[in-house]
Amino acid sequence: MAIALITDFGLTDGYVGTMKGVIASIAPQVLVIDLSHHIPPQDLAAGRFCLLNAAPYFPPETIFVGVVDPGVGTSREAIAVQFAGGYFVGPNNGLGSGLFEKYPVITAVILDNPHYWRSPKLEAISSTFHGRDIFAPVAAHLALGVPVDALGSPLGRESIVSLNLPTYQRLGKTYHGIVQHIDHFGNLITNIPGTVCPNMQGHMTLACQMIPLVQTYGDVAIACPCALVGSHGWLEISLNQGHAQEFFQVQRGAIVHYNP
Amino acid sequence: MAIALITDFGLTDGYVGTMKGVIASIAPQVLVIDLSHHIPPQDLAAGRFCLLNAAPYFPPETIFVGVVDPGVGTSREAIAVQFAGGYFVGPNNGLGSGLFEKYPVITAVILDNPHYWRSPKLEAISSTFHGRDIFAPVAAHLALGVPVDALGSPLGRESIVSLNLPTYQRLGKTYHGIVQHIDHFGNLITNIPGTVCPNMQGHMTLACQMIPLVQTYGDVAIACPCALVGSHGWLEISLNQGHAQEFFQVQRGAIVHYNP
Amino acid sequence: MAIALITDFGLTDGYVGTMKGVIASIAPQVLVIDLSHHIPPQDLAAGRFCLLNAAPYFPPETIFVGVVDPGVGTSREAIAVQFAGGYFVGPNNGLGSGLFEKYPVITAVILDNPHYWRSPKLEAISSTFHGRDIFAPVAAHLALGVPVDALGSPLGRESIVSLNLPTYQRLGKTYHGIVQHIDHFGNLITNIPGTVCPNMQGHMTLACQMIPLVQTYGDVAIACPCALVGSHGWLEISLNQGHAQEFFQVQRGAIVHYNP
Repeated sequence: MAIALITDFGLTDGYVGTMKGVIASIAPQVLVIDLSHHIPPQDLAAGRFCLLNAAPYFPPETIFVGVVDPGVGTSREAIAVQFAGGYFVGPNNGLGSGLFEKYPVITAVILDNPHYWRSPKLEAISSTFHGRDIFAPVAAHLALGVPVDALGSPLGRESIVSLNLPTYQRLGKTYHGIVQHIDHFGNLITNIPGTVCPNMQGHMTLACQMIPLVQTYGDVAIACPCALVGSHGWLEISLNQGHAQEFFQVQRGAIVHYNP
Repeated sequence: MAIALITDFGLTDGYVGTMKGVIASIAPQVLVIDLSHHIPPQDLAAGRFCLLNAAPYFPPETIFVGVVDPGVGTSREAIAVQFAGGYFVGPNNGLGSGLFEKYPVITAVILDNPHYWRSPKLEAISSTFHGRDIFAPVAAHLALGVPVDALGSPLGRESIVSLNLPTYQRLGKTYHGIVQHIDHFGNLITNIPGTVCPNMQGHMTLACQMIPLVQTYGDVAIACPCALVGSHGWLEISLNQGHAQEFFQVQRGAIVHYNP
Repeated sequence: MAIALITDFGLTDGYVGTMKGVIASIAPQVLVIDLSHHIPPQDLAAGRFCLLNAAPYFPPETIFVGVVDPGVGTSREAIAVQFAGGYFVGPNNGLGSGLFEKYPVITAVILDNPHYWRSPKLEAISSTFHGRDIFAPVAAHLALGVPVDALGSPLGRESIVSLNLPTYQRLGKTYHGIVQHIDHFGNLITNIPGTVCPNMQGHMTLACQMIPLVQTYGDVAIACPCALVGSHGWLEISLNQGHAQEFFQVQRGAIVHYNP
């Protein structure tokens, strides 16, 4: 069993290393994989997107620990959710909701059994670092075989928080969507799935420019824009060997169109 | 046994990967955990702070390898120190001194036995990368069970270098301290321990503003300042879902007060 | 057997984590080491430099997976190369060429056997993320013992792409070279090998300034420039506890001289 970590902690402060220390103290044999620790602070949509797109490529039964947690220490619940394919451990704030919409939920619990928290009898649990004191130890115990039911009280499927994110729409022949993520290379990843253009025909429009659909970046000249179905499965606007965000000067949320 | 790495190398150049290659060449089974590689270059106080706060959460007997080493290649000693709870391997320049002040020192040696350095007979040891040529191989051998005494000549407890850092003071009812660290979220972590306010009452003062003590960020409105005992155990000034450093426009070393 | 990863993916998007998920799905026991994921986008020379300098410190038979791949999805080949000491898996674009020039090539193949790609029968291979769909799974199969010959068609040694990089020259007594890499500390690493100055005598010249050769940074005063044979084995210009790039205001490619 593997544990995958996704947080907004960055890698400067040692917070991620501390979580790994807690996991290694309980389950030293378990494989821990970093998914990302550079989710923008408190950006649940970005965390949800990263988790949703990466999860299919992890081993079955992977435990995804997500800590993007603006409500830490308040009444927001800490949860563990078993879905078809793996587990999510983290706050009940929508961070894992992409997974729960894509894969059937099997069991969900509120993490209210302190037996599986860090050293519950020795010292106080921090109000501000549940990643270290609750999520990491719970994930380690899950990896060791503790059943999800043992971790706390049952949580109804309808009580799992979702994010209210914009979806694409079809009006006439045109698909209307937005840029939902901009990656390290400046690629503009839209919220229109590649399944709407199985034949890779047509064009996209962004900032009043028409952009041809192609198979790969190299199908256009260097530094020219193109649209394609990216590796995540979404329609994506890119520049061959360039940076589409700098070229188009757009931000997340920018409106895009696709015409078959 | 685990090895934890803390350096100021950054992650761009491959220096950290090279150290891991050296460790894997000697002790491929040992678990290696990154604590931080983004300590500001040559910033011993920042490295000491990170190490001190994270170490309690690692498995017993963890070997902490610290490479923040402005004096590499000079007469500063390379050392290994066994303390109650683990080991430190790195330069004798104060980087590990937080650990040695908190936990009893059991044994300390100067790393002058080249048998445990990297390939001592094949090529010269670099004057500028002891992380690769001395600290990583020594840590790998320690993890394999080599006793600390075998690594070199004894070093007296009084010869271990400490950093001369400012401490908090109590004058009348008021505690006077400084911001000793600013984290990725902009939280201002002071050098006043949370133990001075067991009932979480009173207020802090920073930049002429009074800041109430609370239990967690969500106890104040979004974007409002609060003070609390942070996950490190120090009094900390934060903004609920915001960035306290940007709000207060202060740097490390800024003066803070706590009034019970 | 270890797998070492070097990419230009950065650590924000989860691309690296996704590759690790793919590897863990096939070969969960294999040790995966990050060499660097911060190679500047599409910068083959920087990736080649990092790989060349780090490889000697990894265990024998390490599989280096390199993904700096401006031509992904075009006709550029995906290759695996067994050289004396290890394997390279990645694009045939010069990224691994430093290794192939330094170590004898034993076998090379084009990765055209989809049996060792990711889930070839279940879904389409992405045109833009061969790291996930081809290189990671091939490396995992190699680590499990699949012979390199089984991965695809033979590739002649003369068909392996090299980079056309500037080399140093000796004119009279003077060695002429360039700054080939600037590291995290601002050290200016030249392309003149340290073997030209076995006695560490003479001086370097950069931006009209003469810089003395020394053994280590601490041989000059704090904030003063020095030249030495760096840990990579190249002549390097540094500032003792300072940042040589900021001091000299130079970029990669700047001309340097060494006079014995």
